[in-house]
Amino acid sequence: MAKPRVRLKEIAESTGYSVNTVSLALRGSPRLPEETRALILKEAERQNYLPNHIARSLKNQATHTIGLVLTDIMNPTITLAARTIEQQLANAGYGVMFAASDNVLANEVKALSRFQSYQVDGIIIYPTNRNETDHIAAIHDSGMPILALADVSKGKLNVVAVDDRMGAYKAVEHLISKGHKQIAILDGAYSLGHSDKVEGAQKALSDAGLPVENLRIINPLGSSAAHGFRAAQKALEQSPRPTALFATTDSLGIGVLNWCINNGVNVPGDLAVVGYDNTEASEYCSIPLTTINYAADKVSSYAVARLIDMIEQRDVIEDKIITLIEPDLVVRSST
Amino acid sequence: MAKPRVRLKEIAESTGYSVNTVSLALRGSPRLPEETRALILKEAERQNYLPNHIARSLKNQATHTIGLVLTDIMNPTITLAARTIEQQLANAGYGVMFAASDNVLANEVKALSRFQSYQVDGIIIYPTNRNETDHIAAIHDSGMPILALADVSKGKLNVVAVDDRMGAYKAVEHLISKGHKQIAILDGAYSLGHSDKVEGAQKALSDAGLPVENLRIINPLGSSAAHGFRAAQKALEQSPRPTALFATTDSLGIGVLNWCINNGVNVPGDLAVVGYDNTEASEYCSIPLTTINYAADKVSSYAVARLIDMIEQRDVIEDKIITLIEPDLVVRSST
Repeated sequence: MAKPRVRLKEIAESTGYSVNTVSLALRGSPRLPEETRALILKEAERQNYLPNHIARSLKNQATHTIGLVLTDIMNPTITLAARTIEQQLANAGYGVMFAASDNVLANEVKALSRFQSYQVDGIIIYPTNRNETDHIAAIHDSGMPILALADVSKGKLNVVAVDDRMGAYKAVEHLISKGHKQIAILDGAYSLGHSDKVEGAQKALSDAGLPVENLRIINPLGSSAAHGFRAAQKALEQSPRPTALFATTDSLGIGVLNWCINNGVNVPGDLAVVGYDNTEASEYCSIPLTTINYAADKVSSYAVARLIDMIEQRDVIEDKIITLIEPDLVVRSST
Repeated sequence: MAKPRVRLKEIAESTGYSVNTVSLALRGSPRLPEETRALILKEAERQNYLPNHIARSLKNQATHTIGLVLTDIMNPTITLAARTIEQQLANAGYGVMFAASDNVLANEVKALSRFQSYQVDGIIIYPTNRNETDHIAAIHDSGMPILALADVSKGKLNVVAVDDRMGAYKAVEHLISKGHKQIAILDGAYSLGHSDKVEGAQKALSDAGLPVENLRIINPLGSSAAHGFRAAQKALEQSPRPTALFATTDSLGIGVLNWCINNGVNVPGDLAVVGYDNTEASEYCSIPLTTINYAADKVSSYAVARLIDMIEQRDVIEDKIITLIEPDLVVRSST
């Protein structure tokens, strides 16, 4: 079965032009008078030949497609952001191509180059490594609208992100207010250059007059519940033993809670636990988890609105804009 | 900043043709001699003007883009499938556009029509409602390669799916082998026409000589942990009280486990629980969950290979092919 993509013949018949002329018109050839092209496009539209996205692309020099590069798509917060971004772009008439880097820089580079070859109108990206963004900046420099969902404000990129430094500050400030002085932080992103949460946590300690060394940084080697489960023991083996733990994703935190249940560690009595993201699971897990609300829907809305602005006004040279959203603390039973 | 998409001038200069001729060549105009077009495309390639996806599309009549329609992207099994599909399509040189229907039929219809307008080369879909697939069959009939990831084998569609009837059979057979006779099933998809799991569960009961009415069907109104948490009480209020519960997603099952922990119900003593999917979380949740292994990676691999076959051989009329993968039981502490 041939894909019945082109019904040039029908359009030719009803307009009286040749198939070749119809083809040229749909391909936006400048050789045809504007009236001829308009007439053929109108007929094509009437016959439901349009919306033919490619024909439209050639007419408008736009693909109405956005590239979305995610890191760890298995992280429910990132999944939620992807869902919201897709919905809002669809409402605005844009399709979404997606790629997951799985936090491997080479995958990110490949995905970006693929999206460029597809001539997407713009790109939204969770960068894999904040210390290696030159390849992203190069895309920005080429004139492609590109927006980062993490605070890489030291670079040239436009940013819409949650203020993770502030979020981490609030999480640790809360633990300190409960009397905790020895705190472990599980942060798989720290080794990838995402130091905002560690820096926010350290600032909370120093603002409270506690030594920054009281924060033990543990790399769970990932961000899932499984990683949290496996890293919990390591956190509790630190000396002096932490009485509180800040898990930089809810998934990590839920893994820690489940390890505690399996190993007779009372939460919050023996160990207070704070998560990060306010995923749905944080409310319905084994011990309702105190967490920081990562407003994925808000970030996504702002990001989509901002990217469309950049696309539609792309001939205007604009200043870099950094939008950081301050997240709130949500207190539950785990602290 | 103009998007420096088209460098027609440079290509014109180095080939000696006019900008108009270069433009026609890149747009695949049949008005030009084949040699002229080939020469210009070669130069465009040399100048890194290619890969220009749209130019290639016009040359090959293909967009090298696949549309992926998901239902509930927050379900980690579906997220994992999406990730695997994206990776394998990228390896095969295809980009992926995605849309989430959120189990709302109107969203599915819209997404399919959007993908058609983008002239994707093929579509992979988790149908929202198995009793309403005429709009999907119509796309199949139009000659667009389309593949369903659920067993809608009563229709005309090609299918690569896990054999959910067999999976549910194994889950309930396991509970019966542990002596359970009163069993509740939480299944949010049943009301959407996905009756495979309920039918498999009922068959396990009747094969064991138990009345089918011993299976109480409860609609948790969704598939997440939150839905499972809220539906657990309803399941235990049934009379006679079920001693075992089959949650048709791991997320539902984890919600049930957490409700039990919060309400002093011993698992598996008071209630045995089986999940479905074998997500990573099922191993690291509060009580390691017995479950059915939904081989998302295997389904995705088969689906991608099959769809590419369909795309590349689309001129050959082929028989419908249904591929069902039999899932395995994974026994843990919750039963």
